[in-house]
Amino acid sequence: MTRNISVEWLDQIPIEKQRIELVERKCLGHPDSLADGIAESISRALSRSYLEECGSVLHHNTDQGEVVAGESIPKFGGGRITRPIYFLISGRATKTFNGINIPADAIAVEAARDYIKEILPTINMNRDIIVDCRMGNGSTDLQDVFRSCEGKVPRANDTSFGVGHAPFSEAESIVKGVAAYIDDTLRPKYPVIGQDCKIMCLRDGDAVTLTVAMAFVDRYCSSIAEYVEQKNFLTEQIAAVAKQFTRRTVNVAINTADDLEAGSVFLTVSGTSAEMGDDGSVGRGNRANGLITPNRPMSMEATSGKNPINHIGKLYNLLATQVAQDCVAKVDGIEEMYVRMVSRIGYPIDQPHVASAQILTKPGYDINSIKPDVESIIDEWLEKTPAITEKVIRGELSTF
Amino acid sequence: MTRNISVEWLDQIPIEKQRIELVERKCLGHPDSLADGIAESISRALSRSYLEECGSVLHHNTDQGEVVAGESIPKFGGGRITRPIYFLISGRATKTFNGINIPADAIAVEAARDYIKEILPTINMNRDIIVDCRMGNGSTDLQDVFRSCEGKVPRANDTSFGVGHAPFSEAESIVKGVAAYIDDTLRPKYPVIGQDCKIMCLRDGDAVTLTVAMAFVDRYCSSIAEYVEQKNFLTEQIAAVAKQFTRRTVNVAINTADDLEAGSVFLTVSGTSAEMGDDGSVGRGNRANGLITPNRPMSMEATSGKNPINHIGKLYNLLATQVAQDCVAKVDGIEEMYVRMVSRIGYPIDQPHVASAQILTKPGYDINSIKPDVESIIDEWLEKTPAITEKVIRGELSTF
Amino acid sequence: MTRNISVEWLDQIPIEKQRIELVERKCLGHPDSLADGIAESISRALSRSYLEECGSVLHHNTDQGEVVAGESIPKFGGGRITRPIYFLISGRATKTFNGINIPADAIAVEAARDYIKEILPTINMNRDIIVDCRMGNGSTDLQDVFRSCEGKVPRANDTSFGVGHAPFSEAESIVKGVAAYIDDTLRPKYPVIGQDCKIMCLRDGDAVTLTVAMAFVDRYCSSIAEYVEQKNFLTEQIAAVAKQFTRRTVNVAINTADDLEAGSVFLTVSGTSAEMGDDGSVGRGNRANGLITPNRPMSMEATSGKNPINHIGKLYNLLATQVAQDCVAKVDGIEEMYVRMVSRIGYPIDQPHVASAQILTKPGYDINSIKPDVESIIDEWLEKTPAITEKVIRGELSTF
Amino acid sequence: MTRNISVEWLDQIPIEKQRIELVERKCLGHPDSLADGIAESISRALSRSYLEECGSVLHHNTDQGEVVAGESIPKFGGGRITRPIYFLISGRATKTFNGINIPADAIAVEAARDYIKEILPTINMNRDIIVDCRMGNGSTDLQDVFRSCEGKVPRANDTSFGVGHAPFSEAESIVKGVAAYIDDTLRPKYPVIGQDCKIMCLRDGDAVTLTVAMAFVDRYCSSIAEYVEQKNFLTEQIAAVAKQFTRRTVNVAINTADDLEAGSVFLTVSGTSAEMGDDGSVGRGNRANGLITPNRPMSMEATSGKNPINHIGKLYNLLATQVAQDCVAKVDGIEEMYVRMVSRIGYPIDQPHVASAQILTKPGYDINSIKPDVESIIDEWLEKTPAITEKVIRGELSTF
Repeated sequence: MTRNISVEWLDQIPIEKQRIELVERKCLGHPDSLADGIAESISRALSRSYLEECGSVLHHNTDQGEVVAGESIPKFGGGRITRPIYFLISGRATKTFNGINIPADAIAVEAARDYIKEILPTINMNRDIIVDCRMGNGSTDLQDVFRSCEGKVPRANDTSFGVGHAPFSEAESIVKGVAAYIDDTLRPKYPVIGQDCKIMCLRDGDAVTLTVAMAFVDRYCSSIAEYVEQKNFLTEQIAAVAKQFTRRTVNVAINTADDLEAGSVFLTVSGTSAEMGDDGSVGRGNRANGLITPNRPMSMEATSGKNPINHIGKLYNLLATQVAQDCVAKVDGIEEMYVRMVSRIGYPIDQPHVASAQILTKPGYDINSIKPDVESIIDEWLEKTPAITEKVIRGELSTF
Repeated sequence: MTRNISVEWLDQIPIEKQRIELVERKCLGHPDSLADGIAESISRALSRSYLEECGSVLHHNTDQGEVVAGESIPKFGGGRITRPIYFLISGRATKTFNGINIPADAIAVEAARDYIKEILPTINMNRDIIVDCRMGNGSTDLQDVFRSCEGKVPRANDTSFGVGHAPFSEAESIVKGVAAYIDDTLRPKYPVIGQDCKIMCLRDGDAVTLTVAMAFVDRYCSSIAEYVEQKNFLTEQIAAVAKQFTRRTVNVAINTADDLEAGSVFLTVSGTSAEMGDDGSVGRGNRANGLITPNRPMSMEATSGKNPINHIGKLYNLLATQVAQDCVAKVDGIEEMYVRMVSRIGYPIDQPHVASAQILTKPGYDINSIKPDVESIIDEWLEKTPAITEKVIRGELSTF
Repeated sequence: MTRNISVEWLDQIPIEKQRIELVERKCLGHPDSLADGIAESISRALSRSYLEECGSVLHHNTDQGEVVAGESIPKFGGGRITRPIYFLISGRATKTFNGINIPADAIAVEAARDYIKEILPTINMNRDIIVDCRMGNGSTDLQDVFRSCEGKVPRANDTSFGVGHAPFSEAESIVKGVAAYIDDTLRPKYPVIGQDCKIMCLRDGDAVTLTVAMAFVDRYCSSIAEYVEQKNFLTEQIAAVAKQFTRRTVNVAINTADDLEAGSVFLTVSGTSAEMGDDGSVGRGNRANGLITPNRPMSMEATSGKNPINHIGKLYNLLATQVAQDCVAKVDGIEEMYVRMVSRIGYPIDQPHVASAQILTKPGYDINSIKPDVESIIDEWLEKTPAITEKVIRGELSTF
Repeated sequence: MTRNISVEWLDQIPIEKQRIELVERKCLGHPDSLADGIAESISRALSRSYLEECGSVLHHNTDQGEVVAGESIPKFGGGRITRPIYFLISGRATKTFNGINIPADAIAVEAARDYIKEILPTINMNRDIIVDCRMGNGSTDLQDVFRSCEGKVPRANDTSFGVGHAPFSEAESIVKGVAAYIDDTLRPKYPVIGQDCKIMCLRDGDAVTLTVAMAFVDRYCSSIAEYVEQKNFLTEQIAAVAKQFTRRTVNVAINTADDLEAGSVFLTVSGTSAEMGDDGSVGRGNRANGLITPNRPMSMEATSGKNPINHIGKLYNLLATQVAQDCVAKVDGIEEMYVRMVSRIGYPIDQPHVASAQILTKPGYDINSIKPDVESIIDEWLEKTPAITEKVIRGELSTF
């Protein structure tokens, strides 16, 4: 069956020429990202268990959950958490199927705790974290079972949609690049950098302002003087990285709310503000591409935690992003590309109501010469939708 | 001090000429909207108590919370909820100030229960609802107090932003109009219509498809036959309303996932799917203008529950929407208008880093002739930012 | 089948001649009694529902639950609760049976809330109380079903026992009498008397000291002066009642921990200390006869909340008490009587391993002349064990 | 000041000559004992922290808490827990004092988890256990501070009492001895024996029946045949031990509710029934001497979890037991001895209202010759009441 793929020319001011652009990323230790990461870990752990025990991934959606902040008394040299961070697992999962009992609640608690331990390595899992579980029962109807392994394409759970775009703008690349540099290069060397960083990039014309809220880990910082020194050093490091992505002027500011005189700085025991007052929820932070981009089309769906078999709010957001990136990589002449995929409830997920691409062409390129290649790439990706599912389960695709 | 207001011309394909447009609204009884409504009710109740007891609104942010679904056995003629819906209040609030104790937890629980009772009138509050509370302590530092009443303009809590647009597209107007018609006209007459409706509008060129997921209330529906009859009747009613907003073809479908043969229909005891499997969270549903509009710039901030004094994620989203609507109403020649407001942490909220308007002009209009009026309207609205706060506290502005 | 009934003479110093005797009662609003009352209410509500919907009482044990205290700021003239009292329902109940779904969680929540409302009439159920539920699933095995309605005698759930004694000593009668007088006569007239009273009676030889911890309800007491006046008045009233039960000297003291100078008195908003710091649990307070009597044999089993069909920890404690009281009422010559009933798991509940009575005779009476009547009364009561079940379900037998 | 010590002769049928005697012990892994052990661990951990950080033990009472059972699917060779066991910490503790913040919630969670890990070594702490905390704030009034370290004797928190007796009867010795043998000798060799054993001893005349409910650990038992073999072996072992304490006939039965044909046996994954349906609470199991003895005077107070400084419900139960045992060890001629200690609220804990001993003398002994020694021993113990506190904090005194 031919897929309904629409490729049209987009007449629009390119993002780089719009005066104001805003891009934000909440890194892994931000309370909202913690919630996302836990939700996705639980879905992956459940999927693996379902596959192992039942031969196919069963119904579940764990795209819910709440990080309720603890209380802490950070102190230069090392303070402590006084009230544990509380995480409530909700959502639902299939707990029995064909006479097989799947320990879904235990799996969820373990996945959550394992993930927290990985992201917040300095936290005392025995003391500072409470993981609670009120996960409901998923449907056990036979017809609800996802027959992903039997070669049949699953059917869409809802009439919904996903969006994606490529390539990243300078501001987006800066945020992505800085986040990666902090995570891959800086933190391993400077453990004072907590996992909870929020990077906001405001481009106003050709002036780029990067505002970073970065949790410092108190045990690795002996004094306010050292804090200031570290902050200055990191400001420079981040500025240097950011400049690799742009020729615009870049201004970096870390923890702008600090009041040094009053000794009020962004110091934490564990590297996340969830230890002292900031709650978090699934689906409130980054979109599927890892960013919050109000200048771009966005989906409100929480990609994290949804089942990777037939939940459009997950699959189509991931797919649309992959498609856009792949087209830009392989087809010449694309200045900007936006992909929207709309499902029809009950129809195979590889047969969307429409897969629509809008393309802003580079000077000298005609949409008609680009169209066939783009259509074909989209078609290929739809063909291999189940491959997205497998990548998600193996943890190869980030969802936030 | 002069405000930094930027008005520029937008060169873009008007929304009505884009091929695909998606618009969605989760009505008041949808689990995500329930969470939003509870969060905002709590913030309003706290604000009123703070004002009454302390003379000014104290620090709080209750933009958190989780609806954990119950279990139910709906039945034509009247079924029942078997496991109560659980709502967790989190966020934080000031509990003591200057020696005054504010019963914030009790206020929050009461506000939540009152709101649920109002939205789900058929629910048994004594049996089917659990409202739990793990709200943390807000800061009690004197400097954190919001001196809204002393004539000083509060300072922005963060470097953040808000977005808004006007006018509504046809698809947006249809969704808004249908939602209002259901709430104001149909449900009062036909109590079988639950509060949990999700209206999704997909415009593909000139074909408008309206997909409505509507919870039926079982006690008002005696049989599958009556269900079908009511569904057909409501489909016609809704189609008629939708057609008032467009000359495009409109196709309406209610509860497309129904399987009449299997007797599997969207029947509920209380009018919300939260009674049987669907969780909800604050900030996951409608944006500040009541819609989800992936074709428009959106903010990821939860508008509901945030403090209405200085939280940019709340105020600037509300303000940007008001500004855009006001400009379109008062200034001729605006085809579409997008407003973005960016704050600077620590600066007065009426002095944004930039208030940026992008205007797509109607044929025959020049941006330069429009500009002065728009600038002046934006400036007036910023001047009266605190008025937004008061409107929010009085419940005159919807946040979702 | 003949029952194994043993009646023997007890050679022991009669209670009234022992130097030290201690008796205590926690009245209905004490946190432990609240927990007991809620537990029993839930069991009764479940039993009635099971009977109505399934024709027999199904497996459940709700003899668990925790009152977690709230926080309050009582004030003469009327203060307020600042953090709601939290009650956790646990235990377990059958939720499905033979295809019938019993809304056990909803029933439990409703029963708990109804009970709290009855006992604490001044509390705001919408604001000051959180009832949460984590009740597990009871067994659904067919063989576990209690066939009480089919004329078969249920089988003991455990090898366990119950104890009872009669008649009440003077100290016991005083505590019972004072408690009843407070509940039936004083509180209806003087609503300042909260439901949370703890009455401790210490008899040291012929000196009786009655120490009453009595929660005052703040809205009915305008000042410390009025508090003192009311306390003095109530002290006299209680002393007068106590004296009706004894010719010994009686000393009554209310709220001995008060520090009037510091203004530290037992003042509450709602009439229970659960509002401000005192937790409570099922089974920690009064025994089945309504008293705590360290001079008498006691069972550690929580009578409240256990299923009334075959749980020996409930039935035999109630039965032993009834038997002892009935013997003392009907048979002359009994100075004191102690009944112990021991079950055998899996045997019919009317066939205990042994029903043992120890009797301290009055001067001039011989155990052998008393024995036959006592044996026959015990036998009759065992015969009608199921009648105890029905009385419990109808709420005619107090369990704490 | 002379202490009010009363020693009197008790005219009573010695326990060994009473026809029916019942003794019970819930071992460490029984849900009620788990709750007790956790409560006491938390109190000890808090006491140590208070001492370390504030120089004295601050106000706390953690004699509350609820074990809510999980769900499991035990299987010969090794099954698994499907829903984690949930433990709710309640009670209250001082969280700030003189400007010092004590991380009471974090301490409590850690103490609970450490204790569970110790008692249930095969449980997966990361997956099968949820420890939640709703502990309230203790009083922070300066006058409430316990000045145990300043040489002053603390004052009684309440008018309350404690009881104790010695020596143990044969039945009591059997239960104690069998419990110790299982814990110290059998389990280290045979890990199939779970920590959850309930030992009930019924002596009917000279026939002793020992009913043991013993959780088997499934990974150490490969089949129903091995289960039966192990049960038979352990029955013999336990009988042999029991016989060391008596010349009466002893009958031992393990897991009498087993239905071998139906394959229904007491098999568990973790060694405790809390994994599948049995809840537990603090203070519902063993008394301070480790036993439940309905033939002896008992206190209803939960000894575990109460503060060890001035809580009479804890101290006097421990003290009375120590005193009785010491007297019996040191003074000749005591057949049985019962100690009751009654406090007066606000008075020094070493000055009870009365410390009363009742002594049943051995043939040939006169109470008057025994009295002086007993009085002097009681006086010495009261003198060193604070030593009890220290022993409790160091974990040298068992409380259940």
